Amino acid sequence: MNIVEDLLNHSRLALAKGITAVENEYDNAVEIMTKIYPHTGNAYVIGITGPPGAGKSTMTDGIAKEYRKRGKTVGIVAIDPTSPYSGGAILGDRIRMMDLMGDDGIFIRSMATRGSLGGLSQKAGDAVKLMDAFGMDVIIVETVGVGQSEVDIVKTADTTMVVVIPGMGDDIQAIKAGILEIGDLITINKADREGTDKLNIEMEMMLELNPEHVQWRPPINRTIASRGEGIEEVVNSIEEHHKYLVDSGKLAEIRKKRIKSEITDMINVRVNRYIDKNVVRTPDFEKTVTKLQSRELDPYSVVDGIVGKVLK
Amino acid sequence: MNIVEDLLNHSRLALAKGITAVENEYDNAVEIMTKIYPHTGNAYVIGITGPPGAGKSTMTDGIAKEYRKRGKTVGIVAIDPTSPYSGGAILGDRIRMMDLMGDDGIFIRSMATRGSLGGLSQKAGDAVKLMDAFGMDVIIVETVGVGQSEVDIVKTADTTMVVVIPGMGDDIQAIKAGILEIGDLITINKADREGTDKLNIEMEMMLELNPEHVQWRPPINRTIASRGEGIEEVVNSIEEHHKYLVDSGKLAEIRKKRIKSEITDMINVRVNRYIDKNVVRTPDFEKTVTKLQSRELDPYSVVDGIVGKVLK
Repeated sequence: MNIVEDLLNHSRLALAKGITAVENEYDNAVEIMTKIYPHTGNAYVIGITGPPGAGKSTMTDGIAKEYRKRGKTVGIVAIDPTSPYSGGAILGDRIRMMDLMGDDGIFIRSMATRGSLGGLSQKAGDAVKLMDAFGMDVIIVETVGVGQSEVDIVKTADTTMVVVIPGMGDDIQAIKAGILEIGDLITINKADREGTDKLNIEMEMMLELNPEHVQWRPPINRTIASRGEGIEEVVNSIEEHHKYLVDSGKLAEIRKKRIKSEITDMINVRVNRYIDKNVVRTPDFEKTVTKLQSRELDPYSVVDGIVGKVLK
Repeated sequence: MNIVEDLLNHSRLALAKGITAVENEYDNAVEIMTKIYPHTGNAYVIGITGPPGAGKSTMTDGIAKEYRKRGKTVGIVAIDPTSPYSGGAILGDRIRMMDLMGDDGIFIRSMATRGSLGGLSQKAGDAVKLMDAFGMDVIIVETVGVGQSEVDIVKTADTTMVVVIPGMGDDIQAIKAGILEIGDLITINKADREGTDKLNIEMEMMLELNPEHVQWRPPINRTIASRGEGIEEVVNSIEEHHKYLVDSGKLAEIRKKRIKSEITDMINVRVNRYIDKNVVRTPDFEKTVTKLQSRELDPYSVVDGIVGKVLK
């Protein structure tokens, strides 16, 4: 089969194979991505993130179904950076797939690359591009957490939603920082729980304090995703943000920024791998490490020497 | 003041200034780290990690106090990758410091470098080395989460403890993967909560399935850290693991591995910064990005060209 040609002709099998190729860095991955690139840039990309247990998967599925109702096709890239499994093998994803299966307008793929030498956000970005070239109208990237690698992943998105839940205690402080940095929308899920009003007030106050929110103030929605409650309003908010980005000219701006950071990531991954192969995995380096361990050498002089040798 | 000389003469102010220098990448940071390096390698380093809300800070403080009882001096590096604050400015740390303050045998420092261009694990490693050269017997590195950046940070440790709590639901799957990769010890905190026995059985089963645990099987301790219950046993387990590493010769082995990964990280950070300065922040790159946005160019050919120019 010709993956690129078939993918552009809406073959789901070709899409699946294309993502597998980029995930596992098969030899044909670069060729595939090079050829599909001119066909990308049409999908609208939504990022969903939040702490473990916030109900992101259920939320994602609900949003996908709502978009289907509105006549849009939907791709889902579910990132689990802590899982050693991949390719949709996670139990939760299986349950989800069963629920959404049989609908040709939806394609779900989970990705997990724990322990790989960088490049998770690049691989997620490539999966998005493949779904984009395939013709999906909306692509949802779902990832756990609010750490740096998650922030990198949601940079792939046009609109980013942070999901929070009542009862997170002091950890809300850390989440708040993440929201300030990346959240275009805030959704309080499990909003039938005690503490919902308090959390809502805290979020309002946090937004109040942020001077950046002059043009777009992140709306706070409430949902009970497990019962589908509030999902329609969330999708309305996403569409409002979409409209705001288009009308203000910001969409082109953030997409330009994204290309910049994608290219930078790709360069860094390539260079880091070069160093791994040509410096780290050599007998010379072993000897140097032994001398460092005995404190005959110091790390800073060693690094100076190696960097001088590697860079032009 | 001469930071290196004063630090080696046990000046707490010099230690604080040294950490500030590496955290903020002051001009004198490399010189300080080069000079103190021969004085490192004596402290025993303990890593503590786990999901948000597991009670890691309370646990860390309890362990520190127990080591003080046993006549050891203790350094604490508390990492919060999601916080925009640093230098011990977090409310929780202030409370902790008040509690432990007045004891010259303890030094606490929190570090937060969200948004910085990589290097968090390197900075944490440098803080550990500074406390080591200062003369701390035991250094505890505490960090939230089980994502990749946290795994990198706890690689700084000789013994790593993963803290879990009952009631984490499905998220326990992700945590399990993290434990398998990095946990030398498992501690169930908040062990008066419902679900403790179930969690204990799950953890036992997970360990049972791991063939790597032939020589050292991670013990599972139970604590209620907020009341100090079980902390003594945790420290006993840490010391048993310490003894195992020394007796088996593994301590030298893992420290060698650590030096290797530290050097690799340092090289990567240096090279990535070089690329940021000499490639990304140039007018040429801006033009290239515009052509990528209009799909006149494709990212893979662009990256090939740049990598070829940067590397020797």
